[in-house]
Amino acid sequence: MLSELKEKVYEANMELWRKGMVIYTWGNVSGIDRDKGLVVIKPSGVDYDVMKPEDMVVVDLNGNVVEGKLRPSSDTPTHVVLYNKYPEMGGVVHTHSTHAVAFAQAGKPITALGTTHADYFYGDIPCTRSLTDEEVHDAYEVNTGKVIIETFDGLGIDPMAVPGVVCKNHGPFAWGKTPDQAVYNSVVMEKVAEMAYITYGINPSVEREPQYILDKHYFRKHGPNAYYGQGGEH
Amino acid sequence: MLSELKEKVYEANMELWRKGMVIYTWGNVSGIDRDKGLVVIKPSGVDYDVMKPEDMVVVDLNGNVVEGKLRPSSDTPTHVVLYNKYPEMGGVVHTHSTHAVAFAQAGKPITALGTTHADYFYGDIPCTRSLTDEEVHDAYEVNTGKVIIETFDGLGIDPMAVPGVVCKNHGPFAWGKTPDQAVYNSVVMEKVAEMAYITYGINPSVEREPQYILDKHYFRKHGPNAYYGQGGEH
Amino acid sequence: MLSELKEKVYEANMELWRKGMVIYTWGNVSGIDRDKGLVVIKPSGVDYDVMKPEDMVVVDLNGNVVEGKLRPSSDTPTHVVLYNKYPEMGGVVHTHSTHAVAFAQAGKPITALGTTHADYFYGDIPCTRSLTDEEVHDAYEVNTGKVIIETFDGLGIDPMAVPGVVCKNHGPFAWGKTPDQAVYNSVVMEKVAEMAYITYGINPSVEREPQYILDKHYFRKHGPNAYYGQGGEH
Amino acid sequence: MLSELKEKVYEANMELWRKGMVIYTWGNVSGIDRDKGLVVIKPSGVDYDVMKPEDMVVVDLNGNVVEGKLRPSSDTPTHVVLYNKYPEMGGVVHTHSTHAVAFAQAGKPITALGTTHADYFYGDIPCTRSLTDEEVHDAYEVNTGKVIIETFDGLGIDPMAVPGVVCKNHGPFAWGKTPDQAVYNSVVMEKVAEMAYITYGINPSVEREPQYILDKHYFRKHGPNAYYGQGGEH
Repeated sequence: MLSELKEKVYEANMELWRKGMVIYTWGNVSGIDRDKGLVVIKPSGVDYDVMKPEDMVVVDLNGNVVEGKLRPSSDTPTHVVLYNKYPEMGGVVHTHSTHAVAFAQAGKPITALGTTHADYFYGDIPCTRSLTDEEVHDAYEVNTGKVIIETFDGLGIDPMAVPGVVCKNHGPFAWGKTPDQAVYNSVVMEKVAEMAYITYGINPSVEREPQYILDKHYFRKHGPNAYYGQGGEH
Repeated sequence: MLSELKEKVYEANMELWRKGMVIYTWGNVSGIDRDKGLVVIKPSGVDYDVMKPEDMVVVDLNGNVVEGKLRPSSDTPTHVVLYNKYPEMGGVVHTHSTHAVAFAQAGKPITALGTTHADYFYGDIPCTRSLTDEEVHDAYEVNTGKVIIETFDGLGIDPMAVPGVVCKNHGPFAWGKTPDQAVYNSVVMEKVAEMAYITYGINPSVEREPQYILDKHYFRKHGPNAYYGQGGEH
Repeated sequence: MLSELKEKVYEANMELWRKGMVIYTWGNVSGIDRDKGLVVIKPSGVDYDVMKPEDMVVVDLNGNVVEGKLRPSSDTPTHVVLYNKYPEMGGVVHTHSTHAVAFAQAGKPITALGTTHADYFYGDIPCTRSLTDEEVHDAYEVNTGKVIIETFDGLGIDPMAVPGVVCKNHGPFAWGKTPDQAVYNSVVMEKVAEMAYITYGINPSVEREPQYILDKHYFRKHGPNAYYGQGGEH
Repeated sequence: MLSELKEKVYEANMELWRKGMVIYTWGNVSGIDRDKGLVVIKPSGVDYDVMKPEDMVVVDLNGNVVEGKLRPSSDTPTHVVLYNKYPEMGGVVHTHSTHAVAFAQAGKPITALGTTHADYFYGDIPCTRSLTDEEVHDAYEVNTGKVIIETFDGLGIDPMAVPGVVCKNHGPFAWGKTPDQAVYNSVVMEKVAEMAYITYGINPSVEREPQYILDKHYFRKHGPNAYYGQGGEH
């Protein structure tokens, strides 16, 4: 069942690991088959070096397991909430990558300071508010998804143009049209978080880059007038 | 004698090295056989790349060598004091991992700032007071163990819920139900120390995460209602 | 056509990658054949692990593609502007290396603080002004080259003695007599940027090193009285 | 000639490289045969991956080349000044390791903040004054050695108990009884410099560790009452 998507999601999880975004089992990637309405996700707490494509778990858009011998990632409900809300998302990633977590812990957005950021994120990467005690007790992972939606709605941000967020006290989620692209965006988020941290160390009063530089670099790589690369994305 | 435990302690020491927690010979892992009341520990100052399982040293709960051609780690008395006090400990680790040492040198606890921390440490990782001149001269390694106990007693912390400490001016100790778990916890401690350091750089006035987030994440992974993973720990 | 230069430019691009200066496709190296007035440059957005020497693209000094199945790097016009202005340049590099980008984002020069810097850069590595909205819309990559020239002209710096720059909000360019040397200088720039960042963390009020130390170290390695090495550069 | 010492000095240079203390050719190790009064040192500017034991250069205690097809390291006169002054030194190392350079650039000693430091350096690692314009022009490398001696004499420090220094605006030198031990000490210096830098980031007002902790840890590893290890040094 969905063996091609399982292979892709497995490969995306392994790529996340090879890129140093996760230690131990601290990350997960999912992908969706929009036609069937089914999500494929990493099993919970399985080591990367023994994981196989057939270990991937299939869940439906209510978060119920449809196939799989293993439990899905405990963050599955967050992924499902995002897929239900945003039809353009094809892959979602959660990590505890160091610098993105630090911004989440600091409760600060990753401000757009340069073209490395602008090439992939069309504006600041927002930080959600804290979940309330009730939200955490009630349905933590579902509400993590909901507070991401609330953040993007509240700020009027298109999540496909700013494909990532840091969740207060928690860490980053990223996404893309495919599981691969979601992984790519999570690697970029970690790198621009590191660059932003160092930048503040050099110049604490630095401000957001001008909008016209954001426009230039983002649209150099995205949309109908993109001229970076050989015709595909990135 | 205790060849299975020697193998486990050896493997845990090698894992500590592979995870980059130690350079040269700057770390040690021990494990205990509670039935026999015997501790197996790394020999002192032996290089990881030549060390073998049979080099592990066996000591009793008075710290006397029972078997072994080599001297045990000079930190053995600290391990022994902890094993005597805490019957649930099955493994103890000491390292000079960079960021945990920096918190020890700074004389500061590693405050619980996010879910990465909460997943494994149910509250701040405390920092001991300095040992006095007398305590250092008298029985340094024994008193290092005693000041750890004093710290946990004084703050009313369960050491199995907060499986690590930084010793003022010195560095981290971590522990767990097994030598493997002790190593795991020491890797997590180094990572959350690094994240905390970067977080303070981004937001110097950041405060401890809310208690209900600590509760949620810690008990998602530990205790009877844990739902992370496939049924085991981590 | 230009197969030897293509091989050199290819090798220089691979070296940039091996030295950890780039992730994904975030960097490019070019080289010039001064006799023919032709520039060889990395294709845009091609992964390093599949790239081959014959993928290199040939452009003339007006920036027009002369040979190549792939599109040249989107930064090609910046390289071309620099080659036209500075006849001694034989290779140009652009990266998004972490600490050099942070200085670019901070809008600060990399001040000459020590002999590591002085060995390769005879003075501060300058930071350009921001491009204006018009300059960005009009001809972004050409104007990036022009603002580099404006910066060196304005400060009276010889670009062959200070073979690199950070472009405000963007990142570093470096160059040299050959593509290899340009890569070398970009690695040095990243390292001295990292050292400068840490130095400011230790002593925020640190000032530029004395001119006579700059003179000593720079001329120990460069020019007719150099006595470092075995007679060649570096 | 001196083929055994050449092999040792070669191996120590390679170890320095493997430990990540140097990029390109930015470091050198020497060793001395005290009976013959001859120093063996790395050639200047030769890449580590092509260097062979027979490339090592032999100089006498006046700094004159006695044997070798290649030029010796440009820092040779500094090594020679130190060997002439301190009869216990058997090996000397110079690097541009990142954090030690940052302390040199900041003009600050690496203060003894914890036991990692105390295990190998019995007190602060001092920072020299700047050389004067005359000293730099006159005989730069000789005067670098002389200012190291002036620093240790002025502070009354035994260089065998504090086997390293940072030279203002320049970088670290370390030494030991053998070339191997000199390399070991230079790796420790870089690590304690990194730890000190992070410690100041966590607690800017941190002070030197108590003398009795310095005493305890230093003499646990050194001198007649040492009890760390299996009977040798480290």
